[in-house]
Amino acid sequence: MSSTADLRADGRTPAQTRPVTIERGWSAQAEGSALISFGRTKVLCTASFTPGVPRWLTGRGTGWVTAEYSMLPRSTNERMQRESVKGRMGGRTHEISRLIGRSLRAVIDTKALGENTIVIDCDVLQADGGTRTASITGAYVALADAVEWARAQGHVPRSSRPLTDSVAAVSVGIVDGVPMSDLAYVEDSRAETDMNVVVTGSGEFVEVQGTAEGKPFSRAELDALLDIALVSTAELAELQRAALAEGR
Amino acid sequence: MSSTADLRADGRTPAQTRPVTIERGWSAQAEGSALISFGRTKVLCTASFTPGVPRWLTGRGTGWVTAEYSMLPRSTNERMQRESVKGRMGGRTHEISRLIGRSLRAVIDTKALGENTIVIDCDVLQADGGTRTASITGAYVALADAVEWARAQGHVPRSSRPLTDSVAAVSVGIVDGVPMSDLAYVEDSRAETDMNVVVTGSGEFVEVQGTAEGKPFSRAELDALLDIALVSTAELAELQRAALAEGR
Amino acid sequence: MSSTADLRADGRTPAQTRPVTIERGWSAQAEGSALISFGRTKVLCTASFTPGVPRWLTGRGTGWVTAEYSMLPRSTNERMQRESVKGRMGGRTHEISRLIGRSLRAVIDTKALGENTIVIDCDVLQADGGTRTASITGAYVALADAVEWARAQGHVPRSSRPLTDSVAAVSVGIVDGVPMSDLAYVEDSRAETDMNVVVTGSGEFVEVQGTAEGKPFSRAELDALLDIALVSTAELAELQRAALAEGR
Amino acid sequence: MSSTADLRADGRTPAQTRPVTIERGWSAQAEGSALISFGRTKVLCTASFTPGVPRWLTGRGTGWVTAEYSMLPRSTNERMQRESVKGRMGGRTHEISRLIGRSLRAVIDTKALGENTIVIDCDVLQADGGTRTASITGAYVALADAVEWARAQGHVPRSSRPLTDSVAAVSVGIVDGVPMSDLAYVEDSRAETDMNVVVTGSGEFVEVQGTAEGKPFSRAELDALLDIALVSTAELAELQRAALAEGR
Amino acid sequence: MSSTADLRADGRTPAQTRPVTIERGWSAQAEGSALISFGRTKVLCTASFTPGVPRWLTGRGTGWVTAEYSMLPRSTNERMQRESVKGRMGGRTHEISRLIGRSLRAVIDTKALGENTIVIDCDVLQADGGTRTASITGAYVALADAVEWARAQGHVPRSSRPLTDSVAAVSVGIVDGVPMSDLAYVEDSRAETDMNVVVTGSGEFVEVQGTAEGKPFSRAELDALLDIALVSTAELAELQRAALAEGR
Amino acid sequence: MSSTADLRADGRTPAQTRPVTIERGWSAQAEGSALISFGRTKVLCTASFTPGVPRWLTGRGTGWVTAEYSMLPRSTNERMQRESVKGRMGGRTHEISRLIGRSLRAVIDTKALGENTIVIDCDVLQADGGTRTASITGAYVALADAVEWARAQGHVPRSSRPLTDSVAAVSVGIVDGVPMSDLAYVEDSRAETDMNVVVTGSGEFVEVQGTAEGKPFSRAELDALLDIALVSTAELAELQRAALAEGR
Repeated sequence: MSSTADLRADGRTPAQTRPVTIERGWSAQAEGSALISFGRTKVLCTASFTPGVPRWLTGRGTGWVTAEYSMLPRSTNERMQRESVKGRMGGRTHEISRLIGRSLRAVIDTKALGENTIVIDCDVLQADGGTRTASITGAYVALADAVEWARAQGHVPRSSRPLTDSVAAVSVGIVDGVPMSDLAYVEDSRAETDMNVVVTGSGEFVEVQGTAEGKPFSRAELDALLDIALVSTAELAELQRAALAEGR
Repeated sequence: MSSTADLRADGRTPAQTRPVTIERGWSAQAEGSALISFGRTKVLCTASFTPGVPRWLTGRGTGWVTAEYSMLPRSTNERMQRESVKGRMGGRTHEISRLIGRSLRAVIDTKALGENTIVIDCDVLQADGGTRTASITGAYVALADAVEWARAQGHVPRSSRPLTDSVAAVSVGIVDGVPMSDLAYVEDSRAETDMNVVVTGSGEFVEVQGTAEGKPFSRAELDALLDIALVSTAELAELQRAALAEGR
Repeated sequence: MSSTADLRADGRTPAQTRPVTIERGWSAQAEGSALISFGRTKVLCTASFTPGVPRWLTGRGTGWVTAEYSMLPRSTNERMQRESVKGRMGGRTHEISRLIGRSLRAVIDTKALGENTIVIDCDVLQADGGTRTASITGAYVALADAVEWARAQGHVPRSSRPLTDSVAAVSVGIVDGVPMSDLAYVEDSRAETDMNVVVTGSGEFVEVQGTAEGKPFSRAELDALLDIALVSTAELAELQRAALAEGR
Repeated sequence: MSSTADLRADGRTPAQTRPVTIERGWSAQAEGSALISFGRTKVLCTASFTPGVPRWLTGRGTGWVTAEYSMLPRSTNERMQRESVKGRMGGRTHEISRLIGRSLRAVIDTKALGENTIVIDCDVLQADGGTRTASITGAYVALADAVEWARAQGHVPRSSRPLTDSVAAVSVGIVDGVPMSDLAYVEDSRAETDMNVVVTGSGEFVEVQGTAEGKPFSRAELDALLDIALVSTAELAELQRAALAEGR
Repeated sequence: MSSTADLRADGRTPAQTRPVTIERGWSAQAEGSALISFGRTKVLCTASFTPGVPRWLTGRGTGWVTAEYSMLPRSTNERMQRESVKGRMGGRTHEISRLIGRSLRAVIDTKALGENTIVIDCDVLQADGGTRTASITGAYVALADAVEWARAQGHVPRSSRPLTDSVAAVSVGIVDGVPMSDLAYVEDSRAETDMNVVVTGSGEFVEVQGTAEGKPFSRAELDALLDIALVSTAELAELQRAALAEGR
Repeated sequence: MSSTADLRADGRTPAQTRPVTIERGWSAQAEGSALISFGRTKVLCTASFTPGVPRWLTGRGTGWVTAEYSMLPRSTNERMQRESVKGRMGGRTHEISRLIGRSLRAVIDTKALGENTIVIDCDVLQADGGTRTASITGAYVALADAVEWARAQGHVPRSSRPLTDSVAAVSVGIVDGVPMSDLAYVEDSRAETDMNVVVTGSGEFVEVQGTAEGKPFSRAELDALLDIALVSTAELAELQRAALAEGR
């Protein structure tokens, strides 16, 4: 009803994501790249392919996919200090980098990738909530292009299919008692519960990270959030497919 | 049946935790402390109370609870390099410290705590799986004693009740297709899905962190893991109550 | 002649810059911003205004303008390691950040700015030569908008004119014996002499940094490079004026 | 006489150490370990054996023994910041780690050890004075067990005897003009002179580190301190022998 | 005229440098060394020769020359914090180290040097302006001796001539409208424009770094500064020749 | 006899120090300074006086004296990496800095110094053994001059006598079974036992740090080393007095 529509500053229904755009191949240099937007949130995702693996993996016949996440100092409302200036990465940065890496590795067959390395960089140019889930969703597109590039170049045999599925992510939460999808910053900062859900193209879970921001949440609330997340990630998977279907 | 009992190296049933002991007041110096064991996993938890809060919180009338987690270099099967020697904390350490802090803050009324700070240290003396969940479970006991100490000393008014509930945590996972509670290291390294669940004494969720280690997991598997986690955390809450009921 | 035109891979004449575009107000959050392109080189420049100055300047009645430069890890042909991961900023980064800051301070009357701080961030999204001079040229536009914002908001009196002139920069060099403007990466790596020249809107020098890459250079070569630089920076000043003349 | 006995808060005579206990094999994982207590001072010592030596020693046929010392943040009366959080080890930590390493190497025949490495970790769980000397005394027991383990496993030939002697240490000092053994924290902080003495099982010196805390000390005072230290270290050597005589 | 002579506190004419002394072979250990003074500015320059090159250069048949610059903490009027204590090198240090290295490499034929490395250290013992240009001038003498040492020892063939020219540097600037050479600290801090000029023995430019400290400078001013710099660097080249002509 | 004289490469008798020179007031800027040489070992010692004390000491009416020690990278036979480049100070550097600081504080009455700070810097220009003891001996002269400067300037009342005694240090050791004074590097590296002894002008001990390098040492050897150290430090105290007696 109209009462529900009024809940959100930008007029969205609870289960509706912001407008999502994926600008594939944004970088002229990276083997794969995508500039992804969820409303005002903008993340530049690049995938860098290099033959060979780190020393500790050499000789096992498996590849390596890892990710690094960072925010530009003025991607936020107030400028943050650069981590290179502070001389160390913060805990949040580490945590998100690890989450992105795990999410992508869930859809990679490292045997099929062979002894090759793909490093994903997700740099937040503008932040308005949901930067980690936008990063995962955009990174998948960059990764898919880097894998195709490697197959085209012969670094990975044509017969190999390193990607086993697609992967997308959304942030959901309970705001004023109502479960909602794709929280913008103003919603996120008021949420009682915040959950990041990473889901494959075939609808199975890769990560579920729910946190009580204000008060603990019940099993029923958890279930409602998962329902909404599955709807949104299915929509995102469709957008990824569309982006990858275009000629590069 | 016997077939299920055979699943676990130490003869436990799937939903059974390892023997848990809580040695309350282990430290002669800290305002609250507990040496907690889950089988061979041993964590020393201390709570350090200091009047006052960090500068950025001053004057708001609210307290601060934070946590730091660390592993002794030879708490593991192979010696790890010290983070003080490497000159920086790793991502995993940061991530777990933040999780412990959030979990404890979920049961603290920071207004009732007043402008006081409690720092929780969880140092893993021996690691055999489940160190982060053991840390949360032991830290609650140390925290409860530090709060009582502060009320006894008059730093917090007798009439204030900064603790709103208890909190405990368990690691659950799917091993060889079977959902199990309190994974030991050998089980954890074979788990297809690993989930850390933090639950209040009244049975509501504070954190749910599920990760597909091997292959993505279904909604049904997620549900089975949550069922088991609620049983185990209810048992742990009982042990915490018993430990705190004894004279210190 | 055609022989000269053949000198450059992209068909430019020696004194011609690449196509330059300035996307003013790119950031929805910063007080001033510009996405500047010199051909494939793209730099996002933001200006962050905050009332007050660092402690060591307090009470002197003067403002502070400083700059930080950084490259995204995959802005280059081969991925570079992040400085936040290495735990320290490299010498080149420091050097360029200082150059940008000095260049902008040359056209700021810090008394007229009052006790306010403006931090400029120049983040290279894609690098193809001339990133430091593109940064200075774009940063001036972001700075001008931040100063206007501060005057509109009343942080700086309407009667104050903190900007005393405009400033732009270009990289010039001698390639195969021919002085050329705005070197692209392939030209820069072959240059015998490389010079970065920073010039005000009124045509005076702020910085002249000439380096013999291959062999020492003569006074006549130095003069030829300065001639070309003055032509190009005059063109850039015109583009800055045009960008700032549009409604934001 | 009673007057002398009154000198010490816990009723000890000047030359008497606090009760010392050695819990050998405390760690289920390390090749050697001991939890040693001198009164309330408790240090967990582990010895980690690994075949091979650091690169700079390779091919010389000699082994390597080194040590690291650290204090848990709340081992002290007031919580200290973690060195991993500060991002660097302090001077005192470095100094004590080096002292422990030198002391143990004094009783190791590195040729007999072969190209193998033993790393000793001394982590102070509770501190009440004398943590560095307790560390050395406990570390010897852990080291002895790691050497035996290596001989049993065949990493070191049965015929080799890498340990040439035992080693123990005590802190002695002059308090209110009286030379005393094994200073507790309250005594140490009042001591005019503080001396750490490391002695082999056969009664020879490995290290003598005397420091005037308040006023310089005379040769006679130095001699009195050495006398007392030799008595206490002989007692400690006896306790080490007893601990190692038990079946592990 | 007398009016011009009055301009400078120490009675120098505008184009005159301070008394320059070069104490060659100051270090008993380094392969080349010089203690150079420009008035009260004193820099100890050493050249350390080692056979072989860094891994990234191996097998290319070319050598490597690099430089590090540092100031003793009390080389200045007020004590500065050590960079080793701060845990990182500042931007200015980085910038000067890179300048010295580039200047020396401009007169080295790295093919003729063969796969050998020379590291130049310039440590400022006392600072009174012009430390970077004194460093370059002294470093050349140390470098020349290290090259001769390597030829004498046979690390570089007798027939090779790795040095292609000499190199010297001077700081020039405009003070109260007058172009002056070799600014002392009191002059430098009042300069409107400051320029460091690095020139070969044959009078060609290696580096020209001009900075408007106060207000932008004109082409005519730039020309006047270059004129003066060429005179002074020719004098310095003569002093270098004289120093190297003496028996070591 | 001649047989003993033959023991030492430079013809010294066992108890003889190398030629020691103290160039007082070497620095034109520091409040006190000395360039001290023990043979080829050369250390530049400066004392920097500043009114006020670190925040943690404010309001107690006592001053603060601290020291920092460092070696130039090519003060040694083989070039060492700079600690500012490594990004951290090594354990040895920390240890020696702390030793110098403690030694000087032993002869300072911090009440008489008032709320003032003196920082001592000992920078080794050339190292040939005994750098830490040369540093202490030279630092005392720099400290004495800084104290006099402060009394002359009125920062410390004329009636106050912050220095209670002088302090000097020597390195002694057993080489080939013979106790010797002031070991040069070639002797130090062969020593079985090495001892640094810090002694006041009135002949009492401030620090005694003896280390068995090769094999443990007996009480008799310890006594012989102390005898020799007392002779040498008495000679050094005389040299300090002579240096300070000259007009500055």
